[in-house]
Amino acid sequence: MSARIRTLGVVGLGLLGGSVARAARERGLAERVVATGRRTRALEDALARGIVDAVVPVEEVGQGADLLVLATPVGTMHDLLRRAAPPLGAGALVTDVGSVKAVLADTLPGLLPPGVEYVGAHPMAGSHERGVEHARADLFQGAPCIVTPSPDAALAAVERVEAFWRGLGARVVRRTPADHDAEVAWTSHLPHALAFAFARALADAPADAREVLGGGFHDFTRIARSDPGLWTDILTANRKALAGPLQRAAERLSELARRIEAGDGDAVERLLGEAREALAALAPNREIPTPEPGAQTRKSSIAKGAAPAGADETKPT
Amino acid sequence: MSARIRTLGVVGLGLLGGSVARAARERGLAERVVATGRRTRALEDALARGIVDAVVPVEEVGQGADLLVLATPVGTMHDLLRRAAPPLGAGALVTDVGSVKAVLADTLPGLLPPGVEYVGAHPMAGSHERGVEHARADLFQGAPCIVTPSPDAALAAVERVEAFWRGLGARVVRRTPADHDAEVAWTSHLPHALAFAFARALADAPADAREVLGGGFHDFTRIARSDPGLWTDILTANRKALAGPLQRAAERLSELARRIEAGDGDAVERLLGEAREALAALAPNREIPTPEPGAQTRKSSIAKGAAPAGADETKPT
Repeated sequence: MSARIRTLGVVGLGLLGGSVARAARERGLAERVVATGRRTRALEDALARGIVDAVVPVEEVGQGADLLVLATPVGTMHDLLRRAAPPLGAGALVTDVGSVKAVLADTLPGLLPPGVEYVGAHPMAGSHERGVEHARADLFQGAPCIVTPSPDAALAAVERVEAFWRGLGARVVRRTPADHDAEVAWTSHLPHALAFAFARALADAPADAREVLGGGFHDFTRIARSDPGLWTDILTANRKALAGPLQRAAERLSELARRIEAGDGDAVERLLGEAREALAALAPNREIPTPEPGAQTRKSSIAKGAAPAGADETKPT
Repeated sequence: MSARIRTLGVVGLGLLGGSVARAARERGLAERVVATGRRTRALEDALARGIVDAVVPVEEVGQGADLLVLATPVGTMHDLLRRAAPPLGAGALVTDVGSVKAVLADTLPGLLPPGVEYVGAHPMAGSHERGVEHARADLFQGAPCIVTPSPDAALAAVERVEAFWRGLGARVVRRTPADHDAEVAWTSHLPHALAFAFARALADAPADAREVLGGGFHDFTRIARSDPGLWTDILTANRKALAGPLQRAAERLSELARRIEAGDGDAVERLLGEAREALAALAPNREIPTPEPGAQTRKSSIAKGAAPAGADETKPT
């Protein structure tokens, strides 16, 4: 089928909802975009800029919609869909952008009128920026979008929702809701928890440390600038899948700290090497330069007076 | 004084040494650049490309040099300077790019001939890429460079070294070696340790998780692609200053994990809020959008049926 939609309904016009609206319009996926949201000014602005065709109360956003996209925090979706669902007609589809999926797959379908299907999705795009004013038509371009149908979902519905996200530019991956939650616990929720824990520890750093921040610091901490309320919802909603990864990361940190504090260079180098290998195995698409044959290792780099001289340093800060 | 140098000697022609050479030349800071290094092919290539004027054995790189820059791993600097120092003439200066400073301030000055001064430096620039082939004349542009004179260093020497790094485009910050080590333990070494620990934990992630990696993952893990040997040197050399930050981060992680696992949303939101505030206090230069008056919090976002509808979501992945 085509991804084309006559009326697209968007619930929540923030960065993600606004980007869905812009992308759907600019890519010709939807003839008409109707939105509802909380921030009156943002809605008026989106209307004035032509990002949406109409702004309506949540109770009306489902009227005539072929596809309804929930683009609000996970904790709000149940209540909003309860209000948005009644006018949805048979054949309509509901998808969303939530970062946890099992809880939604368990609770949202029961809110829908007969003949309407829910197929969850999690586009892994966004930033710490908020609001429709940052919405971009290319936000989903090349980003993974995990589509998480329930086992009893109709295949045609699943394929229509996948075609929609693909039409927005995303690279669609299909998972069960439970597998989604288990995998993103590792790749998204755990890094957020670590970044937040690090950021909170920084309260004890010397104030002058603010002058010695390199690019590595900024990259590493970017996700800790995310919205606390939103991430509280996500981390607690996925706490079962997240417990194991959190514990494993704490163990790995403890092992590394112990070896560093003991000054055990051989053990530290082995742990760091294993770390880089595990990362390369999971994320091989980012290039890691391969050392040349005979290139330095830590031991050989501590020269013993032999020629040849020197060594290269590459040093992220 | 001017930062101008007649002969600049560079020990180690990797990403940093190569970038020092290129920047010094392109910015007209040095008339002549002489280098020594370990990788014959890289040296020949740098010579052919005009990045350096001459390639010499380490025992000769100090001949006629006004300024010698050590751009090798910290663990190699003592031995290399011992070999490079003898031909240095009175008035010459030595600086470096090492990520730890107290150990160098303690050991390098004793290797120098009379009238030669060492003023350490740590340019916080670089990447996980290695080698002179990635060297860039603008690598230091806008990056912090921490200059770490010993208390008995001559002011004129300190100012000449600072002028050199400023001439390469860096934003110079002056610290004692001990303060440097204490501060970068928080802002560079601790994030590297956390990123490596997380990366090693990923060995236990489901293999399919490789398909669900968003931009947040890539930013967060970039520093874990750094060279294990180099970082073993850095982390173990600075282990005294790093012990406290490592322990504090582990405590903060443990507190957050406990609250998440208990499903205690109020406590989790408080911890994440404190995290974001601590980060904003230390790194205020990166914008954090301020919520509008009346904007959602987690609690209010879980709507209770009241108008207005919807909520915005902004969701780093």
